[in-house]
Amino acid sequence: MPFFQRTLRLPAYPRGFHLITRLIERELAAELASIRVGMLHVFIQHTSASLSINENADPTVRQDFESFFNRLVPENAPYFKHNYEGPDDMPAHLKAALLGHSVQIPVTAGRLNLGTWQGIYLGEHRDHGGARTLVVTGWGE
Amino acid sequence: MPFFQRTLRLPAYPRGFHLITRLIERELAAELASIRVGMLHVFIQHTSASLSINENADPTVRQDFESFFNRLVPENAPYFKHNYEGPDDMPAHLKAALLGHSVQIPVTAGRLNLGTWQGIYLGEHRDHGGARTLVVTGWGE
Amino acid sequence: MPFFQRTLRLPAYPRGFHLITRLIERELAAELASIRVGMLHVFIQHTSASLSINENADPTVRQDFESFFNRLVPENAPYFKHNYEGPDDMPAHLKAALLGHSVQIPVTAGRLNLGTWQGIYLGEHRDHGGARTLVVTGWGE
Repeated sequence: MPFFQRTLRLPAYPRGFHLITRLIERELAAELASIRVGMLHVFIQHTSASLSINENADPTVRQDFESFFNRLVPENAPYFKHNYEGPDDMPAHLKAALLGHSVQIPVTAGRLNLGTWQGIYLGEHRDHGGARTLVVTGWGE
Repeated sequence: MPFFQRTLRLPAYPRGFHLITRLIERELAAELASIRVGMLHVFIQHTSASLSINENADPTVRQDFESFFNRLVPENAPYFKHNYEGPDDMPAHLKAALLGHSVQIPVTAGRLNLGTWQGIYLGEHRDHGGARTLVVTGWGE
Repeated sequence: MPFFQRTLRLPAYPRGFHLITRLIERELAAELASIRVGMLHVFIQHTSASLSINENADPTVRQDFESFFNRLVPENAPYFKHNYEGPDDMPAHLKAALLGHSVQIPVTAGRLNLGTWQGIYLGEHRDHGGARTLVVTGWGE
């Protein structure tokens, strides 16, 4: 059974939601091509950034995500105790918990079997999160 | 190692939360029976419907889910930019992100190893979402 | 391919968020050691407790999680219909849906390949949830 695992270093992204589908597909093209049916698991090794799947076409969807999650998880909530890393830190942990630390996508005939309108979102929840690291694992037959 | 992948077309469900455990078990009965220990991954190829796991007995739980998520993610929020597909569209994307696009369940002795009170929820977040497509992948030994 | 599955019974935890990384690593040490590259899936068989991944160092992060989720999902919401199991019950189902029923982590060289600051959180969302059961499945090569 083909089984592969790769560490990918992303470029630094600004705070907000970003499509990384093509980056993943490009970096893993050779490994994905070896799988007829299987799975790809993408894991982010951080607690203030997230991975999720959502709409891949209209940039205003990603902008509305940022607006919504900023209202859902306010900065400087008076009851926060963990605040010495800045006002964006504790909200970033909570956003990451709500959105998730990984996505897992079926692989079919060597390609990610996403729906027509689906893409992989990186949620960068810190003001200056810097470069993020992914561990990407695939398996199948 | 047994490895299978199937595309399932669901019937159209009304907006709200719906149990689809039995539908999955019935459609995949033969494939699940081939796995002594393994995993089943159920993936929804849409960005305005969700999959999650929750209480499988009392219908008022699913009604309270719909009430809660409608309050958590309001329609017609004045800051939404993505609004040309109707007031239920952008909230549907956000609900799907909060709840998730897939569930993964251990398989033991040919059956889904869910807890006594667990079931698979389809969250239909559009007013008229139509038929939805799942990609179901299983593997094990 | 190594493939294992184990049921783990957790001790009862009080309501709140708890790190269970070391418990998992200790209980699965022999099985993890058999995997060079692979995956570990941890599944909770309940609908009022959750598994997620977040910050593993500062206990005030877990306290802020409890404070935040108690505000996000209020007890005694007047529109809840499912309330005969106590005011903490319906909120527990909703918190579990927001946070998730499982975590899946890459395994590398016989160890969980978590980021430096990542740990596995058990979210106990009931006042008296009692002992919880996990099904832990690993595979790889």
